[in-house]
Amino acid sequence: MAKSKFEYVRLFEREDRCLPNTWMVVRVDGKGFHRFSELHSFDKPNDSRALRLMNRAAVAVFREFRDISIGFGHSDEFSFVFRRSTEVYNRRSEKLVSLVTSLFSSAYVYYWGDYFGEEKLQYPPAFDGRIVLYPTDENLRDYLSWRQADVHVNNLYNTCYWNLVLHQKLTPKQAEDRLKGTLASDKNELLFKEFNINYNNLPEIFKKGTTMVRKSVQVNGKPMHAVIPLHCDIIGNKFWVDNPEILKCGKLPLVQIDESYEYFFNNINPFGVKFNGDKENISDVSS
Amino acid sequence: MAKSKFEYVRLFEREDRCLPNTWMVVRVDGKGFHRFSELHSFDKPNDSRALRLMNRAAVAVFREFRDISIGFGHSDEFSFVFRRSTEVYNRRSEKLVSLVTSLFSSAYVYYWGDYFGEEKLQYPPAFDGRIVLYPTDENLRDYLSWRQADVHVNNLYNTCYWNLVLHQKLTPKQAEDRLKGTLASDKNELLFKEFNINYNNLPEIFKKGTTMVRKSVQVNGKPMHAVIPLHCDIIGNKFWVDNPEILKCGKLPLVQIDESYEYFFNNINPFGVKFNGDKENISDVSS
Amino acid sequence: MAKSKFEYVRLFEREDRCLPNTWMVVRVDGKGFHRFSELHSFDKPNDSRALRLMNRAAVAVFREFRDISIGFGHSDEFSFVFRRSTEVYNRRSEKLVSLVTSLFSSAYVYYWGDYFGEEKLQYPPAFDGRIVLYPTDENLRDYLSWRQADVHVNNLYNTCYWNLVLHQKLTPKQAEDRLKGTLASDKNELLFKEFNINYNNLPEIFKKGTTMVRKSVQVNGKPMHAVIPLHCDIIGNKFWVDNPEILKCGKLPLVQIDESYEYFFNNINPFGVKFNGDKENISDVSS
Amino acid sequence: MAKSKFEYVRLFEREDRCLPNTWMVVRVDGKGFHRFSELHSFDKPNDSRALRLMNRAAVAVFREFRDISIGFGHSDEFSFVFRRSTEVYNRRSEKLVSLVTSLFSSAYVYYWGDYFGEEKLQYPPAFDGRIVLYPTDENLRDYLSWRQADVHVNNLYNTCYWNLVLHQKLTPKQAEDRLKGTLASDKNELLFKEFNINYNNLPEIFKKGTTMVRKSVQVNGKPMHAVIPLHCDIIGNKFWVDNPEILKCGKLPLVQIDESYEYFFNNINPFGVKFNGDKENISDVSS
Repeated sequence: MAKSKFEYVRLFEREDRCLPNTWMVVRVDGKGFHRFSELHSFDKPNDSRALRLMNRAAVAVFREFRDISIGFGHSDEFSFVFRRSTEVYNRRSEKLVSLVTSLFSSAYVYYWGDYFGEEKLQYPPAFDGRIVLYPTDENLRDYLSWRQADVHVNNLYNTCYWNLVLHQKLTPKQAEDRLKGTLASDKNELLFKEFNINYNNLPEIFKKGTTMVRKSVQVNGKPMHAVIPLHCDIIGNKFWVDNPEILKCGKLPLVQIDESYEYFFNNINPFGVKFNGDKENISDVSS
Repeated sequence: MAKSKFEYVRLFEREDRCLPNTWMVVRVDGKGFHRFSELHSFDKPNDSRALRLMNRAAVAVFREFRDISIGFGHSDEFSFVFRRSTEVYNRRSEKLVSLVTSLFSSAYVYYWGDYFGEEKLQYPPAFDGRIVLYPTDENLRDYLSWRQADVHVNNLYNTCYWNLVLHQKLTPKQAEDRLKGTLASDKNELLFKEFNINYNNLPEIFKKGTTMVRKSVQVNGKPMHAVIPLHCDIIGNKFWVDNPEILKCGKLPLVQIDESYEYFFNNINPFGVKFNGDKENISDVSS
Repeated sequence: MAKSKFEYVRLFEREDRCLPNTWMVVRVDGKGFHRFSELHSFDKPNDSRALRLMNRAAVAVFREFRDISIGFGHSDEFSFVFRRSTEVYNRRSEKLVSLVTSLFSSAYVYYWGDYFGEEKLQYPPAFDGRIVLYPTDENLRDYLSWRQADVHVNNLYNTCYWNLVLHQKLTPKQAEDRLKGTLASDKNELLFKEFNINYNNLPEIFKKGTTMVRKSVQVNGKPMHAVIPLHCDIIGNKFWVDNPEILKCGKLPLVQIDESYEYFFNNINPFGVKFNGDKENISDVSS
Repeated sequence: MAKSKFEYVRLFEREDRCLPNTWMVVRVDGKGFHRFSELHSFDKPNDSRALRLMNRAAVAVFREFRDISIGFGHSDEFSFVFRRSTEVYNRRSEKLVSLVTSLFSSAYVYYWGDYFGEEKLQYPPAFDGRIVLYPTDENLRDYLSWRQADVHVNNLYNTCYWNLVLHQKLTPKQAEDRLKGTLASDKNELLFKEFNINYNNLPEIFKKGTTMVRKSVQVNGKPMHAVIPLHCDIIGNKFWVDNPEILKCGKLPLVQIDESYEYFFNNINPFGVKFNGDKENISDVSS
């Protein structure tokens, strides 16, 4: 058989293991989502369906990779943080980037209908992926702070922009000119004076993005491992003091069910079950 | 704004450009498809629906990346060959691997229903991706030969194995033992004597995999760029002599429509239209 | 001019920046020093001239790279630790490895005569170099502990081996057989019983290798930056508690001159002046 | 023994194998040679001693690495081309760059006295090193053409500059201003008119650099493997037609001794013997 003669080509493959004992962050990012969001009539400046679909796709990634300790997403991007101690796939960067990005993309299409209902998906969207290493906890926190600061900056701008375009009928160019050089305080004032919007009262998911964590919750008397999307500040110290297991390895803390959260459990059913804080459904989930 | 203070974390990113003037091959490979194929009742040893869905996903990748000059797929894997001269995404390996793998995965889910009909997709599948560089045309041809030789070896084995299991009711272990140490000639004889199967008469797509190429075809008097899946030998010289534009840059050759092929065109409609060699449909396609 | 036409070849170069905020260790290692040491009649098991020449070459590297905070050497190898914050040569690994290795090699030949006198250097020796990144202080300390533990293991073995060969006239094979499977305690006993050697009383440089640090010393009333080779334990905590500036950035501590050390100063004379704790020479050094 | 506990740090090492079947070029480059050449009173614009010392150091590298098929050097740099088929050190880039650079540096110091006589070497010089891969013969030839074109451009400029400075007593600034914007033809004319120098008559080593090749020469009736520095054009086709073994693997051609060349042989004596085309010495060399 001719096989052996050609097999030398495998020697051209290379393996790029990530440096041990560093935090590995895989970030996926929508390709051409400006056009994608227009084509699918996303609400502006934020589309709740789209954000929740992103989160749902992220949960699929959390379920597959147990060594992801925290995630953060907003708009059309999501970051997944692998523990510094993980040896998953021998820390091969190509394997991790491609599998995370693939699963995220695949899940995005798979769950589209759950969030967009009648709005048909018109073509298969793509995401790019990258991996970045952070050697210290401080560097990792700064990375996550960078992404959350970005949410705030972008959301404040976009909220102004789209209100100007949608409600004052400015052209995109006019809206851009209007906002050029304005400070955060100017934008807050603009929203309040011209659109009667108190920026602070906007939904937290728009202002803070989604921080995805793992917790243990009591369901019918049994602890269950859950993935929970939060919408809180992660730049300050409080979050990290309250959730020490994210940076340190260790047992997941048992937390009380909070009716305001969505919960995603890992069940015997490997494909995931969504639970929206509805106590009546819990027994189904755990069975 | 806190942004600037955190932005230093971008310096931890690295860019890994592929060596210029080398063939870049991105190969995607199904993760856990043994289980996936069982759960979705794939025909054994080959499921035509699954193979055609793989091809359909590959066409989505061909449409997005114009510098892919040839592809080759079989079973749950597909290889995409970028021209040695391409500068797409600055030849950044992470970008290319992640985008190709993402789009392939996303398209696989998106087009599932077109090929599997009532058979519901039960969870979002994942593919891993890798990139390998080949410095010479000979190395590249040997890579493709390696993959095609693999199809043959695997298909002959699997055809024996599944016939033994499905029609002689052997257990997996018994079937493996039966085939241990057999040569290709033994397997051909086994198929013929015990199952009256002439291996040579099996469909070419099973024996040769799918080679995907670009051609120009005449549709209603106008040349159109088409992506065409072929099922022919690519190990010998003939294929390369007949299709010189694959290794050399240059104009796509205009070929006659062959009724036995599927054609995939690049239309104004960016999401692709399938044309099954049905002349009556051609006018729709080109309009 | 033909230049421009060829200049594209620069695009094939790649830059490999080391991950920021990690300790970068460059280790050089003699190539073929078994033969080299025989040809130059090195004393066995340790040659003081050779060890001091290694240290002298290391000082040349310390002088060139101010961001090296600690070094460790023994036998024919030396490790140089660049501070995690350094931006020297943009942290390009190829640049750092090649320059450190080159300067070390060049200095080894240059200073040969200072240590070997009449013993002529018979051919230009070579060293290989490598760079390894350590993300945490603990990893770095473990790296240095690994190298120092290695000194001990090798030196105990070699001391036994060479005493058996030189004084009991065993063949290499016989000496190896004699030592096969022995524990450290066995080797200590062998040395004591058969050669009346108390291993603990051997010179520290043989047992602990050389740890090279930077200090400030008072010379004629003025503080001077000195590079000092130490021969002490660096596995335990004491060394790190006593020398906190190694892991943290900060001012070099002013230390008292200890007559037992060699000192290497950075003078106006860029090529270095050796000072052997001889107070009478100090005024020359600082002038 | 504490050893095992620390040995995990080896896992932080990475191996970077160069892509197979590509030409690997290691280029070494003097660090701070502007100052070095002034301090050692190099002749300007070219110092024959320095150029021949560079070549001598390059020969040491050729002797160590038998898979180097051609080298090219000028000024304070030298490039070494490893055959595309070589498996030396498993094609590990760090190993190759560091060993070549180390040996070159070490040899440069070692042989200094043979070329500079009474002029003492004042400090150990350093070279940096890099490795670049070229996938095709054409790319490799373009690389070498790039370096040789550079020699010409620099040498023409430097010849003008130093004649202006040394013989017309211009300041560096004045000389630079004088040459700003001049074409090659202007510079040729300046040399001829003002200094009566016909650029074409300058020594070839200054205008063409040194191309180092391997040949077999007949010495006392026996073929001997020799390393020969040439000073000829390598941009045009002629050189490559005349020396086909450089790009192809194969037996070294037997050439006639040309009295104008230096020859460097690989003898039983591993440390090299210099032979300056002096037939009387040949018997010593081969003995």
